[in-house]
Amino acid sequence: MALGPIEELVTLLTRLPGVGRRTATRYAFHLLSEPPEVAAALGRALGTLHERVRRCERCGNWGEQAQCEVCRDPGRDGSQLCVVARVQDLLAIESAGAFRGRYHVLHGLLAPLEGVGPEQLPLEPLLRRVRDEGVREVVLATPLSVEGEATAHYVAEALAPLEVTVSRIASGVPLGGELELTDRLTLGRAFAGRRRFHEGGPER
Amino acid sequence: MALGPIEELVTLLTRLPGVGRRTATRYAFHLLSEPPEVAAALGRALGTLHERVRRCERCGNWGEQAQCEVCRDPGRDGSQLCVVARVQDLLAIESAGAFRGRYHVLHGLLAPLEGVGPEQLPLEPLLRRVRDEGVREVVLATPLSVEGEATAHYVAEALAPLEVTVSRIASGVPLGGELELTDRLTLGRAFAGRRRFHEGGPER
Repeated sequence: MALGPIEELVTLLTRLPGVGRRTATRYAFHLLSEPPEVAAALGRALGTLHERVRRCERCGNWGEQAQCEVCRDPGRDGSQLCVVARVQDLLAIESAGAFRGRYHVLHGLLAPLEGVGPEQLPLEPLLRRVRDEGVREVVLATPLSVEGEATAHYVAEALAPLEVTVSRIASGVPLGGELELTDRLTLGRAFAGRRRFHEGGPER
Repeated sequence: MALGPIEELVTLLTRLPGVGRRTATRYAFHLLSEPPEVAAALGRALGTLHERVRRCERCGNWGEQAQCEVCRDPGRDGSQLCVVARVQDLLAIESAGAFRGRYHVLHGLLAPLEGVGPEQLPLEPLLRRVRDEGVREVVLATPLSVEGEATAHYVAEALAPLEVTVSRIASGVPLGGELELTDRLTLGRAFAGRRRFHEGGPER
């Protein structure tokens, strides 16, 4: 059966991450059986999304004004800048309360196999901020994946000529993590990055 | 951080079945990072969904005209009518090619615990079709759940005074199903509904 508008909606819904035709069809029929206002409200929110949300001109975070809430917040420590790949990562760090400085969102990672090279990931805006905003430390919080690590090294190299400390978030066994279930690379990192409790010796 | 329009979109997306805040947030950020046309096209499809899709006045199936494609198809066997709970079930039966008659979609099941009683599931349109369309058999294809079974009995009772055969789709072990992994109730049904290959006896 050729149900034109439903088929069209299903196809569009499969553009969502992790949504195949089966899930998309479930969404479409659910919306059909709900009051029309539900689909209409969702339609309006999607139709106006890109008009109402824009990238912060300073850090790349999403927001409703030229500069985002974090950049406008005078209580932030401007000497620390955290580099993340995606706004989602920024939000995760914010909700953990793990950082009180400002951010710089790359909106991507180096992925040579997918054709994302240094020219697709311009660092000039970041270098300008480090020079102009009195940044003393840049914390690289790209993911602990191959692309995230490569990007962290690439950013670190670009920052090397500047007078700024560059650090990388720690990697190791997550809290609550079972050693038995931890992969070899992570365990290797956990040992390589071990911290001393105290110095031992025969006289102790 | 109060990202107004994103938060609003996330909340609306959680109205989709099986979508929590985490998945909704993933959808929203994905749409933000895609070209604006993707969200806009989805927004339009949702905004016009209920204008472009309507219930068939005859059988309740979704379609774009007053009567749906199945009801308009002259090649259908009008003497057989299949009663289903949802349009999704009709589509499953169609794609299996399991039935060549017409349908009647109840758009619901009896669910007394959720306040859906007989008055929320009017059968008058179905009875009228059986009387007026020369229907000789009604196949009850509501699900094999408690609500589906109760609804099948309710419909069968309403049809009893009419001169029409009422049947129920078979239940039993699904094809490819392991007996070992089949639940007790289904196994019970499979035995109760067993069919004879041939009659045995001492003289054979």
